[in-house]
Amino acid sequence: MMVSELDLSRVRVVLMHTSHPGNIGAVARAMKNMGLSQLYLVKPDLFPHSMATSRASGADDLLASAIVVETLDEALADCCFVVGASARLRSISWPVHNPHECAERMLEASEDGDVALVMGREQSGLSNEELERCNYLVNIPANPEYSSLNLAAATQVLTYELRMAALARLEIKKVAAKKDYRLATMAEMDGLYEHFEVALTDIRFLNPASPRKLMRRLRRLFNRAQLDEMEVNILRGILSAAQGQKYHYEKEDKS
Amino acid sequence: MMVSELDLSRVRVVLMHTSHPGNIGAVARAMKNMGLSQLYLVKPDLFPHSMATSRASGADDLLASAIVVETLDEALADCCFVVGASARLRSISWPVHNPHECAERMLEASEDGDVALVMGREQSGLSNEELERCNYLVNIPANPEYSSLNLAAATQVLTYELRMAALARLEIKKVAAKKDYRLATMAEMDGLYEHFEVALTDIRFLNPASPRKLMRRLRRLFNRAQLDEMEVNILRGILSAAQGQKYHYEKEDKS
Repeated sequence: MMVSELDLSRVRVVLMHTSHPGNIGAVARAMKNMGLSQLYLVKPDLFPHSMATSRASGADDLLASAIVVETLDEALADCCFVVGASARLRSISWPVHNPHECAERMLEASEDGDVALVMGREQSGLSNEELERCNYLVNIPANPEYSSLNLAAATQVLTYELRMAALARLEIKKVAAKKDYRLATMAEMDGLYEHFEVALTDIRFLNPASPRKLMRRLRRLFNRAQLDEMEVNILRGILSAAQGQKYHYEKEDKS
Repeated sequence: MMVSELDLSRVRVVLMHTSHPGNIGAVARAMKNMGLSQLYLVKPDLFPHSMATSRASGADDLLASAIVVETLDEALADCCFVVGASARLRSISWPVHNPHECAERMLEASEDGDVALVMGREQSGLSNEELERCNYLVNIPANPEYSSLNLAAATQVLTYELRMAALARLEIKKVAAKKDYRLATMAEMDGLYEHFEVALTDIRFLNPASPRKLMRRLRRLFNRAQLDEMEVNILRGILSAAQGQKYHYEKEDKS
């Protein structure tokens, strides 16, 4: 994928047994607003239908290209990652994430192939068997006293997060393209922490009574900062200079 | 406000001259789903109306308590922060933010008083005069080829971000309550960078040919990490030890 392109073409929305055709149209509109185009309908009650076309309001191209299938398996056969949306938090213990996290994971997976967002029936959501087809479940953290969103409203929120995640990924790629050094590896970070421990002992800064507490604070600080290779080299250079030694700016294999 | 409470009671939604009563009902449902309750209607074409009640689908308490006014000024009189939603990015240069940023700012402002989210007419959005009443404008980054969201869909996205921002603020307050040290002040950071420059010169690490480049890299690293006061003390302690001096763990006023 090019750095400059926002691409949601690999994300499909799958609607299960939708009873109101107006909802199918409203979902199509929400999808097109957010730049999605692949709509799958599993056994809709009424489709095509004038109510669907009217609520789609200009997104009727998505209805025309919608793929109607008999079973959920047909809709998911070629997908590499599947997220199920359900207002009800079932008793089965399946990983549940918020829309933001789910969207990021779906976009990541979409680099390997098509991914699907499965929306349940208006009244009853997804069955346990359908939930078990999913890698993740997504839950919109709604008002617990009034938590059931309209089908199109839920799709709007979830596709909005997909679009925001796609925009954020574009930004990250642009920044990465501009970055001068790669992130440090874990081995390089281990080398840095070992060097800190030795050098701080040499210059008599490390408190022998509690070496771990200081080292833990330093780890927390530098792990949080996500150092690049040059920053590791600079810090090790400072430590070597403090020890009165010369540190060579070379990559090394600390194993 | 208690740390354990999610409170969106100070956030109102203001609908301008809504033409379809069904949209008012759908907005009320979206608001209640996300935990908002204050609905203001500026000169709606038809209200109350059976279509509003039917689309509200259980959120009719918000319709019953909705406040109908003649002008936008009446709806905003007691508000301390106002955000206007507009699909059209006008020629006037007003600060435009995405829904996530706007929601955070609104929640922050709501600690001082009521805040308002103003939604424009279905067909024409907000007029320039109405936009000028706003502190911020919010734009949902939609598909540029099909960017106009339905009124209730836009409200759903914006109130969803408000709820997510409120949840995030609760988390931050919980974390802050657990944090052991406060963030370092700018003066303390300046003291740290000065100390780096002197100490690195003392231990002959700073390259006299390009002192600024190294210092810029260190600033970028430590600014990114957002140091707390104890971390600044530790780093200065290390620098002093490297210089062969003793650094006292005391707060100092570097002015």
